Amino acid sequence: MQLTPFSLLLIMSKEKKQTRIADLGEFGLIERLTKNINIVNKSTLRGVGDDAAVIDYKENCVVFSTDLLTEGVHFNLMYVPLKHLGYKAVVVNLSDIYAMNARPRQITVNLALSNKFSVEAVEELYSGIHLACEHYGVDLVGGDTTSSLTGLTISISVLGEAIPENLVYRSGAKPGDLLCVSGDLGGAYMGLQLLERENEVFKVNQNTQPQLQGYDYILGRQLKPEARADVVNAFEKLKLKPTSMIDISDGLSSEILHLCKNSNVGCQLFEGSVPMDDQTKKMAGELNINPIVAALNGGEDYELLFTLSPEDSEKIKNDPDFTVIGKITEPAEGANLIAMGGSKIPLQAQGWNHLKS
Amino acid sequence: MQLTPFSLLLIMSKEKKQTRIADLGEFGLIERLTKNINIVNKSTLRGVGDDAAVIDYKENCVVFSTDLLTEGVHFNLMYVPLKHLGYKAVVVNLSDIYAMNARPRQITVNLALSNKFSVEAVEELYSGIHLACEHYGVDLVGGDTTSSLTGLTISISVLGEAIPENLVYRSGAKPGDLLCVSGDLGGAYMGLQLLERENEVFKVNQNTQPQLQGYDYILGRQLKPEARADVVNAFEKLKLKPTSMIDISDGLSSEILHLCKNSNVGCQLFEGSVPMDDQTKKMAGELNINPIVAALNGGEDYELLFTLSPEDSEKIKNDPDFTVIGKITEPAEGANLIAMGGSKIPLQAQGWNHLKS
Repeated sequence: MQLTPFSLLLIMSKEKKQTRIADLGEFGLIERLTKNINIVNKSTLRGVGDDAAVIDYKENCVVFSTDLLTEGVHFNLMYVPLKHLGYKAVVVNLSDIYAMNARPRQITVNLALSNKFSVEAVEELYSGIHLACEHYGVDLVGGDTTSSLTGLTISISVLGEAIPENLVYRSGAKPGDLLCVSGDLGGAYMGLQLLERENEVFKVNQNTQPQLQGYDYILGRQLKPEARADVVNAFEKLKLKPTSMIDISDGLSSEILHLCKNSNVGCQLFEGSVPMDDQTKKMAGELNINPIVAALNGGEDYELLFTLSPEDSEKIKNDPDFTVIGKITEPAEGANLIAMGGSKIPLQAQGWNHLKS
Repeated sequence: MQLTPFSLLLIMSKEKKQTRIADLGEFGLIERLTKNINIVNKSTLRGVGDDAAVIDYKENCVVFSTDLLTEGVHFNLMYVPLKHLGYKAVVVNLSDIYAMNARPRQITVNLALSNKFSVEAVEELYSGIHLACEHYGVDLVGGDTTSSLTGLTISISVLGEAIPENLVYRSGAKPGDLLCVSGDLGGAYMGLQLLERENEVFKVNQNTQPQLQGYDYILGRQLKPEARADVVNAFEKLKLKPTSMIDISDGLSSEILHLCKNSNVGCQLFEGSVPMDDQTKKMAGELNINPIVAALNGGEDYELLFTLSPEDSEKIKNDPDFTVIGKITEPAEGANLIAMGGSKIPLQAQGWNHLKS
């Protein structure tokens, strides 16, 4: 799937034949969207086509999560191609399952569509959903497609499977544990800033081409994030079980505070240790943003934040994909950022602020 | 929970203290909405508060379904009290699980709210959700609360549990089987017509009181439907397993066609046998609607439509809650309504037509 800038997309969508959803009807649309589904998991006994799907994990546990994305709040269709949106909507859900050290197996997809969407637009969205299912070996087993008065809403629920003793919660961190993260942070946020800047330029002059060269990595982080299935596989291979884990959807700062609260511990996060890509830093420089702010509060990185017992630290030492970014302390010490100069700054929860407007 | 007419509700909501959601923030709101949850199912190992819920059904199957409701399409807040809406949103999902001859155990709730909703309004909605959970013995184990640019969207997903050999699909009906239904039909639709009529009157003159007397049954069918847990319990007691089953959400006609298509059979539906309440017929008379149309195409009754082997017919014969409304035939005969006069009319799928506007 290529990252398509919005101007190109506008042209493409104008050229494609558009079919009104009303011309197909509910059952026709659902049939068209679900006809090519191949079930890949043995646990999926029945998928789409009955009142409910039927799943059998035998002696394993069920892990169950869900997320909702709304147009204008979580995504802007001016610069997010529908196929990418479908892919990302699945990925953000799968990420929650991996964050339990479990493996996603089945999803359901609910869509509410206003009548501005054509059948072809919905198919484009679904092509991204199917691609994510294929990539992560997940079965699409049901859902609901209905209308809305305005905009697009996507609600995805996911079921995952876990051997009970492998589950990792937010609540297991202990003082002395190492605080670790996969990959790098802040890229998705800086990619979003870039897209928003170019979108503003494009709104003024639709003949300009967006200036996106040299920023393919952070654009990909924003438009086509991946969930860290490979990290869960690596833990299995290394016979490593984190003491606690959470995925980074709202920003490092919020997620650390969740771990600390649920585990009843404090922590020290070392500013100088937070891994960031060069493009993240470069874009932050252009926009006069301190890159650590993007990592702490930006969110949408979908990396895994986890804690390890000190005796397990050897197991990840030589893997460049894992970085030790801090340590867990007694709860009385609180959760603090230790800045480059050594000063101690309490971490603050951001969460989303959508409802603040 | 009492059925409150809209005029009264408008007054009540004006008098209550309203808190802006932004003043509480995401985490504050979630904490307030989930603080009083009592887990009632042993299978719920972990509920709200981690990346995902964890559930263990041991040797039983997982049954998984989901639904989406949008403001202005599925409900009108002018005459649907928020508490009823929360209750109904849960019930429509549970109904899908009972239609598999399974039992619901856990739900997740996703809400997208525009800034017209206060904290108190969301709490009112949640009070209906909690009431339904309590009534049906279901645990609320997760979800997402976020904002939307306009209106309210509710997406609920449900997990149910079933002994594998008890599951009933849409695909098991055989020629010669009896077509049966629980309860009565068309009431929810006629209740909606009544509410819409009175709402039109109310919009013209806000000092009028809605004329709802004598129609409590059909208003209840529309505003506070119940899922037929008792039918699934009755089947267990009678040692009765239907050959196929579906719940009636879109109207009898659509659901019969689903059963016939999935089972590859035809059917005869006898117009004179379709059970309807006196209030349904009376309201239909007032509005000049043929009541059979309300039963066939109205939907939202959430009764169970099922087929039985002829040798099982004795088991339900004396139960006034079950009605034999037709019989399953060879597929070549098609699915037909046998009208009172004896004429044969092919059944037609309606589904929803929301996207037609």
